[in-house]
Amino acid sequence: MTFDIHPIDRSLQATLQQKIDHLNKPKGSLGRLEELAMQIGLIQHTLSPSLNHPCHLLLGGDHGIEREGVSVSPREVTWQQMINFTHGGGGVNMFCRQHGFTLRIVDVGVDHDLTGVEGIIDRKIARGTRNFLHEAAMTTEQYERALQVGVELVDNCVSQGCQVLSVGEMGIANTSPSSIWMSLLGNIPLDECIGAGAGLDTTGLRHKRAVLTQAVEHYRSLCQAAHTPQLDVEDMIRYFGGFEMVAAIGAMLRGAERGLVVLVDGFIMTACAIAAIRLYPAAKDYMVFAHCGDESGHRRMLDIVGARPLLNLGLRLGEGTGALCAFPLLDSAVRMVREMNNFDTAKITKYF
Amino acid sequence: MTFDIHPIDRSLQATLQQKIDHLNKPKGSLGRLEELAMQIGLIQHTLSPSLNHPCHLLLGGDHGIEREGVSVSPREVTWQQMINFTHGGGGVNMFCRQHGFTLRIVDVGVDHDLTGVEGIIDRKIARGTRNFLHEAAMTTEQYERALQVGVELVDNCVSQGCQVLSVGEMGIANTSPSSIWMSLLGNIPLDECIGAGAGLDTTGLRHKRAVLTQAVEHYRSLCQAAHTPQLDVEDMIRYFGGFEMVAAIGAMLRGAERGLVVLVDGFIMTACAIAAIRLYPAAKDYMVFAHCGDESGHRRMLDIVGARPLLNLGLRLGEGTGALCAFPLLDSAVRMVREMNNFDTAKITKYF
Repeated sequence: MTFDIHPIDRSLQATLQQKIDHLNKPKGSLGRLEELAMQIGLIQHTLSPSLNHPCHLLLGGDHGIEREGVSVSPREVTWQQMINFTHGGGGVNMFCRQHGFTLRIVDVGVDHDLTGVEGIIDRKIARGTRNFLHEAAMTTEQYERALQVGVELVDNCVSQGCQVLSVGEMGIANTSPSSIWMSLLGNIPLDECIGAGAGLDTTGLRHKRAVLTQAVEHYRSLCQAAHTPQLDVEDMIRYFGGFEMVAAIGAMLRGAERGLVVLVDGFIMTACAIAAIRLYPAAKDYMVFAHCGDESGHRRMLDIVGARPLLNLGLRLGEGTGALCAFPLLDSAVRMVREMNNFDTAKITKYF
Repeated sequence: MTFDIHPIDRSLQATLQQKIDHLNKPKGSLGRLEELAMQIGLIQHTLSPSLNHPCHLLLGGDHGIEREGVSVSPREVTWQQMINFTHGGGGVNMFCRQHGFTLRIVDVGVDHDLTGVEGIIDRKIARGTRNFLHEAAMTTEQYERALQVGVELVDNCVSQGCQVLSVGEMGIANTSPSSIWMSLLGNIPLDECIGAGAGLDTTGLRHKRAVLTQAVEHYRSLCQAAHTPQLDVEDMIRYFGGFEMVAAIGAMLRGAERGLVVLVDGFIMTACAIAAIRLYPAAKDYMVFAHCGDESGHRRMLDIVGARPLLNLGLRLGEGTGALCAFPLLDSAVRMVREMNNFDTAKITKYF
């Protein structure tokens, strides 16, 4: 599957900057909000941007690598949380309600029969990926299907008028593939990319490092055997990724293709964003990096693509909660451009 | 005037922590939101805090020191902006609408006849303070009246059910008294406390430094002549402060006295908060430091009281806009405690 993603059209940049500078405030005094207003205006190619029908995709999937004991939580937490989200009691539910996001809870590959559970969209590709310690997590066909899940979900959002998208995940053990992606895409030693996830102790962390190192070494040996001269990004994503992660990449790329503002938060979703950018560099123009969490390496991962997160609140819940928490700032930015008087209408002596 | 401000009652702390830890999320995974939830719960002495009827006070006043050319903007901008706020076109209006704050625009000492302007509450003490380069900015009687303005405004908010207060200001040249307060209250060399305000150039900045240094030296010589052995905080506040700044101190102290959550933002309001804390140290328990702006020294000022701001967005508009932008995070914190399922109701394997 290919995406047709254009760098944002900057032809309105000067005019929009003029409008922002002429609003009733010292030039630049709304800081990051002014930058956001510019980005959103350019994405939408308008001097009066808007953020109608925000949608949050909560994508769930399980991971073969979980069998190696790389996570402190057992895999059953994935499906339990998915069901919990349908009852409205999770962090993601709370913040979606608060900020007016439509929440879509999607089973892309949870290792549990969730058919018939009200509120869960069934797009299950398999009951969890395979164990990448020994083999590729998914087949090429599954990879394409997972991308397609993201595409279809975004198309559905757009058809309902959505202009801003955020993506979150639920998948026990998915910090493991994220760390490997970070290492291979950012050319950073693997050890520096591996954190404690949702609470591993020192022994657990050492074990996680050993398992992931072994997995990457095995993958490299397979590549060498196949005479693949360089790292093939798409192959690497497929080899280690989760279904929910590839679906997230599909959603981000489709979001960029269709001109949405794409909110990115969290260690796992940032890994997906970086993979998406590596595949289609222009996709970055459409992304707003919402939050830098505590997971070891999150900031370094953001540095790979030169992203400056809006918030730094020490959140590490996942589910895309940091993205949702940043939404009011985007809303403020848009309101600034749309609602704030300029120096003429305000009848103020223009002060720099 | 004295205030009866108690340190927050911590008797519920252990129980509230238990409630927060038992919510359906890895322990501590909502970071700063969990700390906010704790602070707000303790302020309100409840396990189910709320943030009803948020109010924003926008206090305006002019400054005698403006006559010395310490500001890039002329003093008429103060009254022009006050009128602009009544038309809804300022930054503060926008963010109040966005976050459901009742906005009260109050003339505490603007140098313009604003009587009869709809939407401005008339509490004018004088048409601007006197010039502290030569004499005290206000009399003791005026100081008491300004405090009382803040008290009365807060009492009015509380009578309408207000649980969370933010305070902003409009007063050309009021970074000057703020820098002096910072220097004298924080024991920091004056030069390091003086920034460019809303856009001074190098020459302007040098002039501002010279004027403020001279003013402080004059004040010190007066103190010595009067045989005041040490810095009298209240006298110092009165000597340099603006009416809007003293009213802000009154509002913050009354807010603490009445158990409100008090949002603090901006260089000038942070100076007022520090003055308030110096007068009544327990007042700090009730304050949430919302934002660290770009004004030189803002972070150092926050360090004086060990405050960690929630946001860092480079805002420097004033008006309390950073406080308003932080409100959704407080709202998230409160929703977390009130709405999020715990591990029992969510039927999740307790992980980590």
